[in-house]
Amino acid sequence: MKLGGSVITEKKRELSARPRVIDRISGEISSFRDELIIVHGAGSFGHPIVKKYGIGLGHEDFRRVGVSETKLALMELNSLVVGSLKRHEIPAVPFMPSSFMMANEGRLTSIGIEPLRRLLETGYVPVLHGDLIVDSMWGLAVISGDQIAVQLAKDLKARTVIFGCDVDGMFSSDPRSNSDAKLVPNLRFSELRSLIARAGGSAGTDVTGGMRGKLAECTRLADEPITVIIFNLAKRGNLARLLKGEEVSCTCITSG
Amino acid sequence: MKLGGSVITEKKRELSARPRVIDRISGEISSFRDELIIVHGAGSFGHPIVKKYGIGLGHEDFRRVGVSETKLALMELNSLVVGSLKRHEIPAVPFMPSSFMMANEGRLTSIGIEPLRRLLETGYVPVLHGDLIVDSMWGLAVISGDQIAVQLAKDLKARTVIFGCDVDGMFSSDPRSNSDAKLVPNLRFSELRSLIARAGGSAGTDVTGGMRGKLAECTRLADEPITVIIFNLAKRGNLARLLKGEEVSCTCITSG
Repeated sequence: MKLGGSVITEKKRELSARPRVIDRISGEISSFRDELIIVHGAGSFGHPIVKKYGIGLGHEDFRRVGVSETKLALMELNSLVVGSLKRHEIPAVPFMPSSFMMANEGRLTSIGIEPLRRLLETGYVPVLHGDLIVDSMWGLAVISGDQIAVQLAKDLKARTVIFGCDVDGMFSSDPRSNSDAKLVPNLRFSELRSLIARAGGSAGTDVTGGMRGKLAECTRLADEPITVIIFNLAKRGNLARLLKGEEVSCTCITSG
Repeated sequence: MKLGGSVITEKKRELSARPRVIDRISGEISSFRDELIIVHGAGSFGHPIVKKYGIGLGHEDFRRVGVSETKLALMELNSLVVGSLKRHEIPAVPFMPSSFMMANEGRLTSIGIEPLRRLLETGYVPVLHGDLIVDSMWGLAVISGDQIAVQLAKDLKARTVIFGCDVDGMFSSDPRSNSDAKLVPNLRFSELRSLIARAGGSAGTDVTGGMRGKLAECTRLADEPITVIIFNLAKRGNLARLLKGEEVSCTCITSG
């Protein structure tokens, strides 16, 4: 499950988390008992600092210190999420993507997944986040929580990937600028590419791509027996209903 | 370089860091320009919580939440260290051992070292800590910063391992109970085993073994062209002098 950075943070205010929203989400997860991995976006704990220092553009001293600063901010947000889950007695264990993933030109190429797999199998809930990852070509790359969630789902053969966003799902056009925009409730991986061009980006600044980026990541799951659900995590109760198998307004993507 | 948990935290008071000491240490490191990895002990951010929950003794729900709590505390201490280094313009990058290491019966068996190696080579300073590591036999094991420092030194063929403690080095007997105890300034790896039995433990509670544990770890470096230095990090200026190659009262272990 991906928790959108735009839901758990104030995207437009640097380093501004929404602790009450995070706590509400933890509460909605707390009665779920199946295997679960949580990946949260970086939101305003990532993008603004990455932009300020131009991280990924070189290894000058000031950018290097910017990497430090970004990592500290990401740890802070991750601590908030893990701490909130823990208060709801969810055995959350932080996993730091930059410690065990590598990328090339902005795409993940390797994940040392064994420690995570073992903890998942023994009942823990790994909690990851969008991160700065060592990149063979660029030095460091910003890797979105979306990309991480999709890659983990592939590697661990997940049954379901859930994207919690600040919109109800994928729309026929951008619902913010077009009042005729309609939610697309069901679609197939095979239809995805042609629809991507029409999907709107999410509000606020996001160096990792918003809804369009999310859907593009999902095309990589086309050959898997997997269900992708994109739903509105900002609406109270939605997540709890979804985890209980109840109906929620969302976009559901299947290979079917 | 290992920063002793007894130096950077109040070992006898749970969750009690020494931020001014940490800052003083960062200052002493700040003009060093060679490749450097920092491993810090968990001190009072690890041992008390591990003991309270009996972590490593099973996977019952309350222990699992204890793992969450321990990881949160370790992240907090790690953030304090990385944050302090960053304020001194050292490009510190946190590495979370539990995300990329595995153990068996309390001994490290694998380290997914590539991301760390790459960042080290491009001028960053990885910052690790004693941690809870997935263990094939025990589920989870407490792995000391000492063990991690020695294993990284082996894997990365380090020239020097520096242990910063709250004593001047290894003594002929326990200096706390024996006023005749003399600092051993130089010794060889080959002499280590016979001397270990006589080495005193460090003060306070330490589930990972104090000086005796440190020396036992060092025996594993016997076949490497490496120098181990054990010195008093609690004395202001000692570290800066050591890093400049100046003389410091310490124990120096070589293969020579």
